[in-house]
Amino acid sequence: MQPFVLDARLAEDSVSILKLGLCDLRLAKDSRWPWLILVPQRADISEVFDLTPLDQAMLTFEQVTVGAALKAVTGADKINIAAIGNIVRQLHVHVVARSEDDPNWPKPIWGYGTSVPYDQSAFDAMKTRILEALQ
Amino acid sequence: MQPFVLDARLAEDSVSILKLGLCDLRLAKDSRWPWLILVPQRADISEVFDLTPLDQAMLTFEQVTVGAALKAVTGADKINIAAIGNIVRQLHVHVVARSEDDPNWPKPIWGYGTSVPYDQSAFDAMKTRILEALQ
Repeated sequence: MQPFVLDARLAEDSVSILKLGLCDLRLAKDSRWPWLILVPQRADISEVFDLTPLDQAMLTFEQVTVGAALKAVTGADKINIAAIGNIVRQLHVHVVARSEDDPNWPKPIWGYGTSVPYDQSAFDAMKTRILEALQ
Repeated sequence: MQPFVLDARLAEDSVSILKLGLCDLRLAKDSRWPWLILVPQRADISEVFDLTPLDQAMLTFEQVTVGAALKAVTGADKINIAAIGNIVRQLHVHVVARSEDDPNWPKPIWGYGTSVPYDQSAFDAMKTRILEALQ
């Protein structure tokens, strides 16, 4: 079996904040919206339906846990959860907190504009709040 | 408990092709890409994490079943699965077959352009192929 190796673009665009049972939980380097990415630590998987049934169940559990935590932390108007992967084929699930005053509401975030980096203290604060909500 | 009533915009933009254990499976009236929508038949739910754990598991099962069928039918380059709901708040999950030659590849379909209706025979043919793949 091949080992899991994180896709280079995911590694560039986000930072690992926690390892869950299945996924590497990553915070995107984009301050426009609180944006988490769940990456199942399984090699050579592009589609949710290519995971084993147990991994599918784990992914669902991790998605809803992270989604509810992100909602609690941000008070977002809507949580967007999506497995798209047209560009980066390694399976990854976006969990994004959307607000009616964010830069592309109500359209989706993917493919919109360019990312706006956090300053380090704001990134660390967001990371800390999310980890506290997951405890 | 409130009864489930389908959102008016979902009713307008898609047609029910099958009732699954949890979801109404609907085919969008947009021939630009094969586009299915799963609507959990539960009242007053906007977020996946507001479903019961059993319904979450059911939704996952139905998503992967429908996603794999759509992949088999279309030979798509990528299946996109997303719960967004910034406009229509009734929980619904998009399952979309994307191809590298489709009108907005690799960007997402939501918020892009305007729908292009099927002619009735093409709609019926797509519906039939999807239902056969789900048998």
